[in-house]
Amino acid sequence: MRIGIVTRHDIHRGVELAEEIADFLIKKNIEVFLDRQIVSELRRFHDLSCEIDEMDVDIIITIGGDGTILRTQSLINSRKIPIFGINMGTVGFLTEIAPEETFHALKEVLDGKYFIEERTRLEVWHNRKLAPALNEVVLMTRMPAKMLHLEIKVDEEQVEELRADGLIIATPSGSTAYAMSAGGPIVDPRVDAFIIVPICPFKLGSRPTVVSGSSVIKVRLLREGKKAKAVIDGQYEEEINYMEEVIFSKSKNNAYFVRLTKDFYKKVREKLIKGGIDLE
Amino acid sequence: MRIGIVTRHDIHRGVELAEEIADFLIKKNIEVFLDRQIVSELRRFHDLSCEIDEMDVDIIITIGGDGTILRTQSLINSRKIPIFGINMGTVGFLTEIAPEETFHALKEVLDGKYFIEERTRLEVWHNRKLAPALNEVVLMTRMPAKMLHLEIKVDEEQVEELRADGLIIATPSGSTAYAMSAGGPIVDPRVDAFIIVPICPFKLGSRPTVVSGSSVIKVRLLREGKKAKAVIDGQYEEEINYMEEVIFSKSKNNAYFVRLTKDFYKKVREKLIKGGIDLE
Amino acid sequence: MRIGIVTRHDIHRGVELAEEIADFLIKKNIEVFLDRQIVSELRRFHDLSCEIDEMDVDIIITIGGDGTILRTQSLINSRKIPIFGINMGTVGFLTEIAPEETFHALKEVLDGKYFIEERTRLEVWHNRKLAPALNEVVLMTRMPAKMLHLEIKVDEEQVEELRADGLIIATPSGSTAYAMSAGGPIVDPRVDAFIIVPICPFKLGSRPTVVSGSSVIKVRLLREGKKAKAVIDGQYEEEINYMEEVIFSKSKNNAYFVRLTKDFYKKVREKLIKGGIDLE
Amino acid sequence: MRIGIVTRHDIHRGVELAEEIADFLIKKNIEVFLDRQIVSELRRFHDLSCEIDEMDVDIIITIGGDGTILRTQSLINSRKIPIFGINMGTVGFLTEIAPEETFHALKEVLDGKYFIEERTRLEVWHNRKLAPALNEVVLMTRMPAKMLHLEIKVDEEQVEELRADGLIIATPSGSTAYAMSAGGPIVDPRVDAFIIVPICPFKLGSRPTVVSGSSVIKVRLLREGKKAKAVIDGQYEEEINYMEEVIFSKSKNNAYFVRLTKDFYKKVREKLIKGGIDLE
Repeated sequence: MRIGIVTRHDIHRGVELAEEIADFLIKKNIEVFLDRQIVSELRRFHDLSCEIDEMDVDIIITIGGDGTILRTQSLINSRKIPIFGINMGTVGFLTEIAPEETFHALKEVLDGKYFIEERTRLEVWHNRKLAPALNEVVLMTRMPAKMLHLEIKVDEEQVEELRADGLIIATPSGSTAYAMSAGGPIVDPRVDAFIIVPICPFKLGSRPTVVSGSSVIKVRLLREGKKAKAVIDGQYEEEINYMEEVIFSKSKNNAYFVRLTKDFYKKVREKLIKGGIDLE
Repeated sequence: MRIGIVTRHDIHRGVELAEEIADFLIKKNIEVFLDRQIVSELRRFHDLSCEIDEMDVDIIITIGGDGTILRTQSLINSRKIPIFGINMGTVGFLTEIAPEETFHALKEVLDGKYFIEERTRLEVWHNRKLAPALNEVVLMTRMPAKMLHLEIKVDEEQVEELRADGLIIATPSGSTAYAMSAGGPIVDPRVDAFIIVPICPFKLGSRPTVVSGSSVIKVRLLREGKKAKAVIDGQYEEEINYMEEVIFSKSKNNAYFVRLTKDFYKKVREKLIKGGIDLE
Repeated sequence: MRIGIVTRHDIHRGVELAEEIADFLIKKNIEVFLDRQIVSELRRFHDLSCEIDEMDVDIIITIGGDGTILRTQSLINSRKIPIFGINMGTVGFLTEIAPEETFHALKEVLDGKYFIEERTRLEVWHNRKLAPALNEVVLMTRMPAKMLHLEIKVDEEQVEELRADGLIIATPSGSTAYAMSAGGPIVDPRVDAFIIVPICPFKLGSRPTVVSGSSVIKVRLLREGKKAKAVIDGQYEEEINYMEEVIFSKSKNNAYFVRLTKDFYKKVREKLIKGGIDLE
Repeated sequence: MRIGIVTRHDIHRGVELAEEIADFLIKKNIEVFLDRQIVSELRRFHDLSCEIDEMDVDIIITIGGDGTILRTQSLINSRKIPIFGINMGTVGFLTEIAPEETFHALKEVLDGKYFIEERTRLEVWHNRKLAPALNEVVLMTRMPAKMLHLEIKVDEEQVEELRADGLIIATPSGSTAYAMSAGGPIVDPRVDAFIIVPICPFKLGSRPTVVSGSSVIKVRLLREGKKAKAVIDGQYEEEINYMEEVIFSKSKNNAYFVRLTKDFYKKVREKLIKGGIDLE
């Protein structure tokens, strides 16, 4: 078995835990690769150093929050490498375990007591294919407090013309992230669908819309002179000009996660209803 | 070709239009069957009289609103007979044309210029299989203003324990009906999903949930001494007792509709946003 | 000082606590009156027995939830007797202390370390003056799942014509009760206003409306053949017929509460956001 | 009588209408003042040219949308000059008449057939007194898509700690503007209250809150390293640093409007529910 390890670098405990995990796995004769930045901080494991986008492994362990997973996933890109997330962030909706469960959980994983969960990603076109989104793409103005005028089409049928601060096109994974803050429904990851949620629409009666995962969504920027940007998973930005179209459809490449338990709704209850959520 | 005709009886113009349609179709050598009540009002077509649940036809034309379609569909039950709805009701979300378009539209249909749209239905179990729902099942108290205490499970995972006035389990077709009034999202009929929407939940932070069409939803009545009822498509009622479970899954039998144009989002804009909606 | 004691009778611990409070106060030479039902259960204090609506006291202590306070308040009616609520119910939004704080809190009260909070009540007219509402009046159908058609006027200006399951006219006190479940805003009790919240309105874009406490709100039942009922604070019901009007304005008689701390927003956070709410 | 005239300069028809109104009023022997920019475009009325903030008049006529009124009102500042708005913008919630009604309406006004409506304004403190807000103050990040961490206090009681894209503190006038887009209730202008509405809060269960017009609202920026800005009526911006507080209370100086009819709810129905709203 080959396992990669990635961590947030701004959390000292994350780098420490990465070291402990590496030692643990090496003793178990697992082939281990560490994100180059971990190696440069630890000044150990120099021969195990590897860029995330070059890790040729069976599983990547991420230490951090959902941001760490979103960034790692975008570097994995189309390769089928499942992520096993240890939660050291504030959200942890995509992560699987808490830091104190690490070694117990790793034993389970090494014993094959896990399953792989697939999550749909969103393919995004704007002149060319952009990075796929695991959570969502947010269309928003480049200047805060200025609204966009958008036309939304689903499979060439016009859904709505809309004035709003922005627009979210989310996957089911993204339904518990920013789309939720903007008033969207919770969508079970097993639903083959995307969610369209306007941000502060300037009209009463605008509602979130759930469209088929097989549909093609086109959003056109209508207002002359205005520029927008598309922000993908909070990681990448792309500038959109007047009358340009952004096209969304299901990516052929899913994201994969190592899971020990089925707990989507438990996470919804604990993280969103009781505890509140913090997306950074 | 064999065509059945059904109408609301409390609208005089509906019975008249049924007569005109029958005359029109007979001239075109179509085999026509009329709902027995139309025949008894018209005192004509005695030999064409037929109960809805015995109509062995290629298409049933309904004259009325969505209520007429929901009632007709439940009588068609598992037979694959598409409905062509002429809107004489107040909603007309499931209907296809306005009365003044009738004969132009019928020519299109006779010329084969139409397509069949399938709509998912919800199978409902409570001790036995109940009538399937095209729009929704509403769980509510038998006494107004008393709330229910419910446990919701999806594929055996607990989603929520909930105190609320009631609970809606809706199909995508139902997303533009009662579920929308209770705050649910608009769900494109092509999405393979069901929507769970609480009615006046007694806690901040309860959200509509969209679950997979392949999932099994179980709702249990938790509060001792309370009785609830399940109302299916506003047509049928079933009493539910304390600690009993109602089980929802996708019906094997879809509903079928004769469609001339793809206009789901146009209907959403016109009927829900601009005009408001009246479900009776 | 003269103090009355009222309790929910269906909670044994409530009757016990009433006895302990009575003994405690009598030792302190307070003149005590007990709700007649407490006396009949305890078989003590026969000479202190008193109907709630005849209690001529400085403070009434209630043991129970918000329902107990709403019922007691309606029996106090226009007399200026502040209520001191000990929470043995599930909500306790109007109550002040938990049972275990009872004797410490009573000492504070006897030492004068408290303030009186006034809460606005809603005067309700339908042919005659009905009981005033401390929380809300709910207009709803007499048959579940049948909607009302209503016209709402504020100071003779038409606000809206509305089809909905029901309508809530709430005081700021009621903004954290049923009105909240129906989607209304939280309104600080110091705001001189009433809140109009439709229940499951059959149109997108209907919003809660906050109107001045000096305004007169008139609601007329428009739909022929339909009957509605007005439920006042969940305690009293009044039948409303077609074309009849119910008129709401600020009551001249406030409700009064004994308070030890200013904690409205703390209650909102603890009872509504974290713990959920149960209105029975 | 002395009347000032102000117009949007980017609409040719606005400048034309300003000229027609000036000619009309001068014939009626009204003393007229024109915004200097109108004069420079028309190359007439040089001796009537006047800066808005120096207009010493009984009424100011504005030609444009709500933006024109908000800008004019902020230049009038504390002087009691009522505004009479002719709607050439897209919203026109604060405006009174359509352009084609201009001369008929002006006759009414000259005949004294009007009333003055007062609207509350919000005083804003941040190190010093800022421009008062007629509609709202929006606290938002200086970088789009980064959220704020805020603490809200009302009269020194903590209301909430909140992570959100932003926060709106609105007057009742502002309840039909940006606060509505973010999910706030409609608040009748006669209510003495302010509305606190979070923008995309990162937690389920956050609700708009209506607080007393007599209250002092304090909002503190909690997150280290983050900067925010306060945008007043979409006109003025002020930078806010980490741990700084912005303080809101009722302004001593109201805004005044010339009104011909009472039509708040008619505007809500027509502009917000039917037509949608466009705030630019």
